[in-house]
Amino acid sequence: MLALQGIKVLDLTHALAGPFCTYQLQLLGAEVIKVERPGTGDDFRDFARPEGWDVGPSFIAVNGGKRSITVDLKQPRGVEIVRRLALTSDVVVENQRPRSLARMGLDWESLRRVNPRLVYCSVSGFGQTGALRDWLAYDHTIQAMSGMMWNGGDDIPTQGRGFSVDCFAGYVAYSSILASLLRRERSGEGQYLDVAMLDASMVLMAVGIVRQFVSGDQLSAIQAVVHERPTVAPYRTADRWLFLSGNFQNHFEALCRVLDAPELLADPRFRDVRSRNAHSAELKEELAARFAQRSAAVLERELMEAGCPAAVVRTTAEAVQLPHLQERQLLQPAEVPGAQTPVSLINAGFVADKDGPHLSGPVPELGQDTEAILKELGYTQTQISDLRVDGVI
Amino acid sequence: MLALQGIKVLDLTHALAGPFCTYQLQLLGAEVIKVERPGTGDDFRDFARPEGWDVGPSFIAVNGGKRSITVDLKQPRGVEIVRRLALTSDVVVENQRPRSLARMGLDWESLRRVNPRLVYCSVSGFGQTGALRDWLAYDHTIQAMSGMMWNGGDDIPTQGRGFSVDCFAGYVAYSSILASLLRRERSGEGQYLDVAMLDASMVLMAVGIVRQFVSGDQLSAIQAVVHERPTVAPYRTADRWLFLSGNFQNHFEALCRVLDAPELLADPRFRDVRSRNAHSAELKEELAARFAQRSAAVLERELMEAGCPAAVVRTTAEAVQLPHLQERQLLQPAEVPGAQTPVSLINAGFVADKDGPHLSGPVPELGQDTEAILKELGYTQTQISDLRVDGVI
Repeated sequence: MLALQGIKVLDLTHALAGPFCTYQLQLLGAEVIKVERPGTGDDFRDFARPEGWDVGPSFIAVNGGKRSITVDLKQPRGVEIVRRLALTSDVVVENQRPRSLARMGLDWESLRRVNPRLVYCSVSGFGQTGALRDWLAYDHTIQAMSGMMWNGGDDIPTQGRGFSVDCFAGYVAYSSILASLLRRERSGEGQYLDVAMLDASMVLMAVGIVRQFVSGDQLSAIQAVVHERPTVAPYRTADRWLFLSGNFQNHFEALCRVLDAPELLADPRFRDVRSRNAHSAELKEELAARFAQRSAAVLERELMEAGCPAAVVRTTAEAVQLPHLQERQLLQPAEVPGAQTPVSLINAGFVADKDGPHLSGPVPELGQDTEAILKELGYTQTQISDLRVDGVI
Repeated sequence: MLALQGIKVLDLTHALAGPFCTYQLQLLGAEVIKVERPGTGDDFRDFARPEGWDVGPSFIAVNGGKRSITVDLKQPRGVEIVRRLALTSDVVVENQRPRSLARMGLDWESLRRVNPRLVYCSVSGFGQTGALRDWLAYDHTIQAMSGMMWNGGDDIPTQGRGFSVDCFAGYVAYSSILASLLRRERSGEGQYLDVAMLDASMVLMAVGIVRQFVSGDQLSAIQAVVHERPTVAPYRTADRWLFLSGNFQNHFEALCRVLDAPELLADPRFRDVRSRNAHSAELKEELAARFAQRSAAVLERELMEAGCPAAVVRTTAEAVQLPHLQERQLLQPAEVPGAQTPVSLINAGFVADKDGPHLSGPVPELGQDTEAILKELGYTQTQISDLRVDGVI
């Protein structure tokens, strides 16, 4: 039994944060019904879509395994469809503009009256309460506001590379929904969850922030890139960068063995961590000369096996090729409409002894499940045809 | 009722990833019993500890609200104490070296026989299976290996700033435990969960990775810092950096209103997104000249209220001062042993209509709950005194 088997999720989200949340729920076995605008669907279907593909990569990454129904929420009969879906759902997730769903009676207050076991999660930039709740948020603006972009007063700000705060906010929403479903199993009660990207960015930086409270350092970036310690630093090898992270004595001993450099181990300047840091420039020079002779991949394997942490500075494209990740089923091959090349989606990030997470179906075509879902709700074929003729679905 | 009220967590973790996981469980009401080595405890108690403080910031950040028991796992009677704790626990979380707990009979296979409802989560660098499972991992090495550090072949690698992959791995562990507890409510069965930092880093970068699969671009970093678009870029104002994220037409209209620049809106070179990007340098110059006249904070408020996303590039120290975050109770004032200044910890990142997350107690002193916990397990005062005399606790 998967953790979320039989759990029904009504997905009123678009773009990244919300869909990333419901994608995670799907990996655990939930049935996710994604409501999309007739005609175009989620704007992200088309975002950065390459020539020849039916959908773009950002949509693909966070919508696998979901069902898709098209519904025009500007029409009362469309709202009625979604309301009926909400009545039979365990979870509603939405990232619409604040209060837009309330006008349609699709907000938590309206729905809880008829479905008191409902878990309802809103994902937004700044939350549903507080002074900033109506401000618009994108990943960039949250990174700017949270301190993630700051490089000192004068240097040009830079974005976090390779990840987005959107996605982490979606991940926080996912966790909070799991917690709330667990609470419901034990209390019988639904709950309202209000997740904000700005809050999420703070959770991701929690340790750095507390460090700052303690140090009392109120003006500097919370974690500068420190490469001053000679044994925690990037080094150029014969072919590429290697990051050495060998701060402890046993690491340094392993390092000297692998480099066949007993003279460094015996050198009183490099006797212990304190002494090595005091002679940083000299040790760096010694190490750099030795690393420059050898290949990064060989060094990585030899150092790791000897017990000194070190890693080739890979590209992400190289990282996903690691056989280790294949063995752990981190990559889930996906059926993608109009795909011109094989695509895998990223799994949930944990392995279980059984009933573990997995992608449960293709990336959906727009509205591919509209009729099936309406029939499950009790709509007749005639009613469905009428809805289609009237542009409601 | 809090989501994890009555849930008992045996915490065999140290450093960052594991403790961040159990800290999150604690925010939801779980009772977390942290097992520490007598004498020194978790190494992170002392890590970067400032003069005069009893514990260092990294420990403070991820251990609030837990109970602390000291147990020497090198002694059989110490192992027996932990085994008895495991029998009455709902969850065990550990980040010890692979197989070290198996030697003591504290691994999943041993404990599930006597506690079949147990959820057992291991957190490590590379997981419990696969070719790399014995390799050591630190935040740096995982960032190097996953692609997060890569800056192009020649540029010096840089760390993710302000967050750590450790913490995100702990967050993945936390979510997977919630999912597994939910599965247990419905199936009656415990589960084994294997969380790896390398996998977690891929989850955080999932969208970028899929983008790369789709683009077929197998060699570049997955998300370069792109500031080429004139309306999605940092600008120097009169006093500091502002990040503008106004890519859509309605944003640009709001921007021109706030800057009192109808001439830009009317300029055919800046008619639409495509045209603005084609004349990027010219528009940047026009905007830069106008931004340079005004203060960032005022611009942020005016732009946000007008509907154009833009944010002051704050430091994290400034971000936590935002009254908005106070209103949302993101900062939880903490009792910290020997604190020389007030410290707050970061809350769970969501707000609930009721029974929301909160810090449930102080950052524990080493072994502060040893006697109380042993009594709960049925040890007598005499037995406890003997254990203490023999250095078991």
